[in-house]
Amino acid sequence: MPEVRVEEVRRFMVESLVAVGAPETEAKRHADLLVHADSAGHFSHGLNRLELYINDIKNGATNPTARPVILQESGATAWVDGCNALGATVGHFCMDVAVRKARECGVGWVAAKRCNHFGMAGYWALQAEKVGMIGMAFTNSAPIMVPTRSKQSATGTNPISLAAPAGNGDSLVLDMATTAAAMGKIEVLIHKGEPVPPGWALGPDGKLATDPQVAFDTSRLLPLGGFEETSGYKGFGLSTMVEVLCSGLSGSNATHNVPPWTHNQTESPNMGQCFIAVDPERFAPGFTTRVADCLHHYRNLEPVNPALPVLAPGDKEKQSAAATQHRGTIIYPQRQIDVYARVAKAIGIEPMKIHSA
Amino acid sequence: MPEVRVEEVRRFMVESLVAVGAPETEAKRHADLLVHADSAGHFSHGLNRLELYINDIKNGATNPTARPVILQESGATAWVDGCNALGATVGHFCMDVAVRKARECGVGWVAAKRCNHFGMAGYWALQAEKVGMIGMAFTNSAPIMVPTRSKQSATGTNPISLAAPAGNGDSLVLDMATTAAAMGKIEVLIHKGEPVPPGWALGPDGKLATDPQVAFDTSRLLPLGGFEETSGYKGFGLSTMVEVLCSGLSGSNATHNVPPWTHNQTESPNMGQCFIAVDPERFAPGFTTRVADCLHHYRNLEPVNPALPVLAPGDKEKQSAAATQHRGTIIYPQRQIDVYARVAKAIGIEPMKIHSA
Repeated sequence: MPEVRVEEVRRFMVESLVAVGAPETEAKRHADLLVHADSAGHFSHGLNRLELYINDIKNGATNPTARPVILQESGATAWVDGCNALGATVGHFCMDVAVRKARECGVGWVAAKRCNHFGMAGYWALQAEKVGMIGMAFTNSAPIMVPTRSKQSATGTNPISLAAPAGNGDSLVLDMATTAAAMGKIEVLIHKGEPVPPGWALGPDGKLATDPQVAFDTSRLLPLGGFEETSGYKGFGLSTMVEVLCSGLSGSNATHNVPPWTHNQTESPNMGQCFIAVDPERFAPGFTTRVADCLHHYRNLEPVNPALPVLAPGDKEKQSAAATQHRGTIIYPQRQIDVYARVAKAIGIEPMKIHSA
Repeated sequence: MPEVRVEEVRRFMVESLVAVGAPETEAKRHADLLVHADSAGHFSHGLNRLELYINDIKNGATNPTARPVILQESGATAWVDGCNALGATVGHFCMDVAVRKARECGVGWVAAKRCNHFGMAGYWALQAEKVGMIGMAFTNSAPIMVPTRSKQSATGTNPISLAAPAGNGDSLVLDMATTAAAMGKIEVLIHKGEPVPPGWALGPDGKLATDPQVAFDTSRLLPLGGFEETSGYKGFGLSTMVEVLCSGLSGSNATHNVPPWTHNQTESPNMGQCFIAVDPERFAPGFTTRVADCLHHYRNLEPVNPALPVLAPGDKEKQSAAATQHRGTIIYPQRQIDVYARVAKAIGIEPMKIHSA
């Protein structure tokens, strides 16, 4: 598959967003969010999504020059109007407020309405982790998860993320959709032409789907846990927890009122997001040492298969990011390269240069 | 199966705890915690556990007269020493502090070390919900979950709970072990003599266990999501999130250092617990209306099987509690009644009177 140098991917993303009206600072922040996802191996949330972000701006669903505002705040809390700005603009604004509040009184808890898609939730949790705090970030999304026993989708992939510093540059990073898999992963399977693993999604007949295009079109992902017997209601329950923290607190659309993310969306989705920062120094001394001890313990557990060592949450992404950095390139399916050659032409910018094919 | 009047169950629990040294106020609070679980149909966490609590006190692992203390606090946070008190004593102390802090600055975030088992996590989240707040509660526990790819257990059932008020006495209540099932559910299967559903637990051969006694003895529960292909690493990740919030913040034992809960435990488990209260009034007006709208939407989704309506998180427990209240009794397996007849004799109190057999 074709490789593109990381800096070329970044250049392409920034120019794309600027070409449709984003200020350069915001385009750079948004590009960093997408490059982070691709570097970490979460291709669903990187370049794969750029065209949707571009179209949202072109169609007026996202306002790339808007700035979020605080509508109400108290010691540890802030209620924010995302003002329909770019995902990265709102994400940085809210997590900065959360960190400031956590410095002041130990915890910062920010809920924002009128948000757009903010990429990998874990990227936002990591903004707090970088300054020594526990970061958490959540977003609701369009209805795509089938609640246990239901025929229709009602909640979203509604991700949960937490990042905690472990010292010496190490960290524990959880970043997960509350569905068995994220829809973006099914999009990637479409691009790759691979089947959907069992337990991920239903087809229109209410049975398990294996064709990724069928799973994508049907939009009925199973919650984490799968069917009722294997506790799928817990995955559904987690998605409702995210709903409470996002739309509940912020007054945004609930997931069941969020429009699906399409290429010709003119209405803003008015999604809700929640950002939390906690200062571990307000609690027992030695927080990072304890997190490091857990990571060490997990990584040294005896594996069932010696070829597949036990990973701590976030390790897979760190390994992928290290490999990306070492290679200096990101590898994309040819199909995705072709899509962005077309996009480049349409918005009048240089297409991505292939490093090696 | 034998039925016992709710008030008789409560009488028996209070007298049992008082007989081994608990002050009456604390015994009553602890009994309420256990009765709540049985009423809600979570028999694993009710009377089923009473003998363990009694033995913990008798063996000196729990100090029933101890009172927790705040070691450090700031605007939104408190670090607490549970001082090895009864689970209900620490739970009330911490959630009261969290609610007080949430009244002051919007959020209260309390982490406690030197804790004992605190029963159903959701009971603690509900203490905040009762006063109009979002409540969350977490605890670590003994190693019983097999991390993805691991041969050995390392994390716990480490439950996550959230309760949010929906107005008119309604609420959304998530209360879930991060394993596919809680060990207590397997204990209940032992009492009932029923097999373990697939996807819950491993046997000593590393394959799925069906005999509940084998599953119990092996102590290797699968994380929510099951094996790696169906995203079991997410359930493992959630259990590590609980670990960060509990032992990470409080300085308690990490799960992998918590001793298993046995009938002859003399050492305190020094578990970690985390209690959060959030005042929704600091955010967008109309919080309870939005939660109610979500509950209404979920409950009215078209079910796959018309005989099995879609439930919102907490509905099953509410239905069970309503049935318990209507009946006025709790139904236990004969085996459990026999166990407690023996316990009553040993500690010199009146056995539970059977209402109808």
